[in-house]
Amino acid sequence: MKAKPDNAAVKLVVVGSIGLDTVTTSATTRRNVLGGSVSYACAAASFFTRPGLVGVVGRDFPTRYRAALRSRRVDLRGLESAAGRTFRWSCAYEPNLKERETLSTALNVLADFAPELPTAYRHSPCLFLANIAPEVQLKVLSQMCALRFVAADTMDLWIRATRPALLKVIRQVDLFLINDAEARALTGEEHLVPAARHLLKLGPRYVIIKKGEHGSMLFSRQGVVLSPAYPVDLVRDPTGAGDAFAGALLGVLARAGSITSALVRRAMLYGAITASFTVEAFSLEKLLAIRRADIEARARQFRRMIRC
Amino acid sequence: MKAKPDNAAVKLVVVGSIGLDTVTTSATTRRNVLGGSVSYACAAASFFTRPGLVGVVGRDFPTRYRAALRSRRVDLRGLESAAGRTFRWSCAYEPNLKERETLSTALNVLADFAPELPTAYRHSPCLFLANIAPEVQLKVLSQMCALRFVAADTMDLWIRATRPALLKVIRQVDLFLINDAEARALTGEEHLVPAARHLLKLGPRYVIIKKGEHGSMLFSRQGVVLSPAYPVDLVRDPTGAGDAFAGALLGVLARAGSITSALVRRAMLYGAITASFTVEAFSLEKLLAIRRADIEARARQFRRMIRC
Repeated sequence: MKAKPDNAAVKLVVVGSIGLDTVTTSATTRRNVLGGSVSYACAAASFFTRPGLVGVVGRDFPTRYRAALRSRRVDLRGLESAAGRTFRWSCAYEPNLKERETLSTALNVLADFAPELPTAYRHSPCLFLANIAPEVQLKVLSQMCALRFVAADTMDLWIRATRPALLKVIRQVDLFLINDAEARALTGEEHLVPAARHLLKLGPRYVIIKKGEHGSMLFSRQGVVLSPAYPVDLVRDPTGAGDAFAGALLGVLARAGSITSALVRRAMLYGAITASFTVEAFSLEKLLAIRRADIEARARQFRRMIRC
Repeated sequence: MKAKPDNAAVKLVVVGSIGLDTVTTSATTRRNVLGGSVSYACAAASFFTRPGLVGVVGRDFPTRYRAALRSRRVDLRGLESAAGRTFRWSCAYEPNLKERETLSTALNVLADFAPELPTAYRHSPCLFLANIAPEVQLKVLSQMCALRFVAADTMDLWIRATRPALLKVIRQVDLFLINDAEARALTGEEHLVPAARHLLKLGPRYVIIKKGEHGSMLFSRQGVVLSPAYPVDLVRDPTGAGDAFAGALLGVLARAGSITSALVRRAMLYGAITASFTVEAFSLEKLLAIRRADIEARARQFRRMIRC
């Protein structure tokens, strides 16, 4: 099943949650499907670079999901298999597919996750700390020894529960990604422009505020970049769109030599496109079904939509 | 106070509501300030063409508001002064300045408004039916005799109360503008892409869905154009932003010879810029304070933000 030998170098390391999601929409319920921030982010990044996944699953993690990630050339040397059950999360979406309610969360093996990176990962120039406990993000960060670019994402839980550790993460990253509601919660600013300015002061060179179907905004000392979302005909499941956006973005950055504002702008476009495929199906189904050429075709279309 | 003699030809006629607004935000309450769809739309259009305003006010309408509109070179030959009180509307915004509650509406002279256009207006090539009762929009439309481009906007009230008349308007316009929530209400489609497709089938060549701070989307048989909103630092009062967006857009179209997709795209950019100034102050205050050069400066900045 391996597309490349496992001794290939990884240019991007991604740590985050991986587990089994049960997702209910007004159309249907899908049980125990592959989910988690690192799954979406790695699958999305894999169109642009070979990402190394850092995560933990239990003994019950289905072989077919491992194979699915390998089929996208995701390096799984950093995927630990621990005694116990895999992380599980269940949610129900409102009919508009915007609001969702978390029905249950069982951390299981994720509760004691203390990642030890494979040696081959430690020299990766690029690191993405996808959504997971800030303490885990810091543990991964401390093991890297040749970093040129670090990005981090988070979620509302960590803003409430482990704010000091989260702030420590934010201080050490080049790019911090956060969604609009979380940006408001973290900074106490009602409006996004002041919220982003506040976040820039916490350390990162770049801040991206993700607005779901409304696109994203990049803030840096060089100014603002506005990127709309690609308008898909039918959203089936928005889960993982933000992780896929960030994963593809980091994939584009990791592939490139040096990181400039123009490159970040280009990477945001690919992030938006990859996220737009993600929401067209449940779980990683669409990401596993498309090819790079599909992304490029949609990117051409997208550029025509936003040319000014 | 007149910047030009009143016999100048108008290239754009705009009909809509005009009245006195009382607006409450978490910061303050502003009483009896100039408002109404046609006020915002004409002030915004006036940066690009000389618009002719069609509306009605009562005998209590302050002279200074008439002078304010004239100072922006808005042609007021179509502004009727009727016996009775001016239309009044009052609202309170949530602290996030997104949701608002209408506290009171007094139609007053607007209740019996049956516009008779000045002869000089009837040959205008361009018409914008800003938000007002569809019956009034149709009455204005029927008096125009050299139209090359007609656009219309609406609001939730007319979707609920006078749907057949509204559909009749939509059938006869080249461009229909509507906000996202209203597009869902009118079409019954939860998602904006199918909603826009539904609206295109009702007759217009172009449909623009306005998403407030999230920008706008243009749909036509040629495809989709995505335009973000300009990210302002501080929103003081979002009232009239959609009217100003549409007014500026129509102003750009009216000034040009023939209307192409490329021109509509450019007009959307100016609509977004003009709307961004509008929300930075209450009522038309900012629109009355800026000059075309301010719009152009922000347009240059905006283009850098969205270049892909």
